[in-house]
This record gives sequence, structure tokens and C-alpha cells, in this order.
Amino acid sequence: MTDQIEVDFGEDGLVPAVAQDADSKDVLMLAYVSPEALDATIETGFAHYYSRSRDELWKKGASSGHLQEIEEVRVDCDADTLLYIVDQEGGACHTGRENCFYRTIDGEEVAETVFDPDAVYE
Amino acid sequence: MTDQIEVDFGEDGLVPAVAQDADSKDVLMLAYVSPEALDATIETGFAHYYSRSRDELWKKGASSGHLQEIEEVRVDCDADTLLYIVDQEGGACHTGRENCFYRTIDGEEVAETVFDPDAVYE
Repeated sequence: MTDQIEVDFGEDGLVPAVAQDADSKDVLMLAYVSPEALDATIETGFAHYYSRSRDELWKKGASSGHLQEIEEVRVDCDADTLLYIVDQEGGACHTGRENCFYRTIDGEEVAETVFDPDAVYE
Repeated sequence: MTDQIEVDFGEDGLVPAVAQDADSKDVLMLAYVSPEALDATIETGFAHYYSRSRDELWKKGASSGHLQEIEEVRVDCDADTLLYIVDQEGGACHTGRENCFYRTIDGEEVAETVFDPDAVYE
């Protein structure tokens, strides 16, 4: 095993992380990761992020059950972006879709809801 | 055709954009997009970004020839992240790989170079 790559967390201490579904290869979501979130992701094998709005470490799916089990964590060439390749439990998006990119820039919806967000997020 | 979604460019006037290969579905890269870059992308059909290091609008592939022809621009649920689904000419990464995510967090290289960066970037 080689040494862990030093991630460039930048001025605000966060890097963007893209979550991609290991099976469908769909891009599920983008969120931000702190050093603590990256450590927790590697240690637990489940995706953790840092919520900028709630200002706290966030285990994806902790309340909804829609966990992201990590298959691989990748780092980009500049070491300032992460790619989480995951097995997504349920849908990734809080709107009930499988992923957050369900609209084209023209406002056309290209994905259906797969769960009822009101039943999952209280 | 519906109305174009209003993108939330935030305090610094930029949003992250994930570029995904339309055929392989590989995540190619992440870069940042200004309102002008988004307009240029939509108008020309080729991916434009905003270079934070060079502080300028940037047409991907303008010098390398490794253009990204747009198949679709998607917007996430919060309208603060874009997904460019593209046909990538040549490799996306300045290191000579097809995409920028060629390393695991443990430093293992999982992709070969597909072009000589010294010959492409002068």
C-alpha cells in the first residue's frame, strides 16, 4: 500500500467531492468534504461530507437510511477534488430522485422520483 | 422549451461543474463556471469554464485541441452545481490521462496516459 495522497483543502478547509454510482456510473451528487469527513469516510467505509449550511460533519444517509457505501475514493490531478465511487442505498437526492442532476439547464425533468421524500425526511 | 434554470453562482460568482463522458460515463474532471462561461457553453455547444488560477474564461481544449462537445447541461437540485455531459476529444487531463481521477486516495494509479502531455501542452 502506498502513502495516502495529501489533499489540498484550500482556504476554507473543504474540497468538493463528486459521488458516482458504482453500478450505473450516474453522477449522484456533489457535496463538500473536510479533513474530518475524509477521515471518517475512509475509516468507516461510508461517505461522509461537511454540511456548509448546517456547519457540521454529515454522514450521508444517517437520517434517511440512504447510505453510500464506499467502493473507492479517488483524487484528481491537482488533489483538490475527490471522487467517491459508491453503492447508493435508496436515492441520493433529498427530492426523491436517484440523483440530484434530474433537470437540464432548460428546466426539463429527466428523472422520476423513486421514493417519497416526505416519508423519508421529516 | 421551458425557461432556463437560474443558477445560484454564490458569493464568488462561480459554481463547480462536473464533466462526464457521454459514452463511458467516466467522471472526467471538475472545474468552475462563471455566468459568462455558462453562456458561452450553451451558445457554442462546447464546454467553457472559468480558470481561477489564470482568472479568465477558458474554453476547454482551446490550446490542446481536447475539446468537450456538449451533449447536455444538467443542474442539481439546489442549482449550485452543474453537470456537463460531453463528448471528450482526446484526454481530459493535463497529465495525459483520459480523466483527472486516475489515482486512489492511497496513491495507486488506476489509469494509463493516453497522450504525451509535453507534446500537447507547450
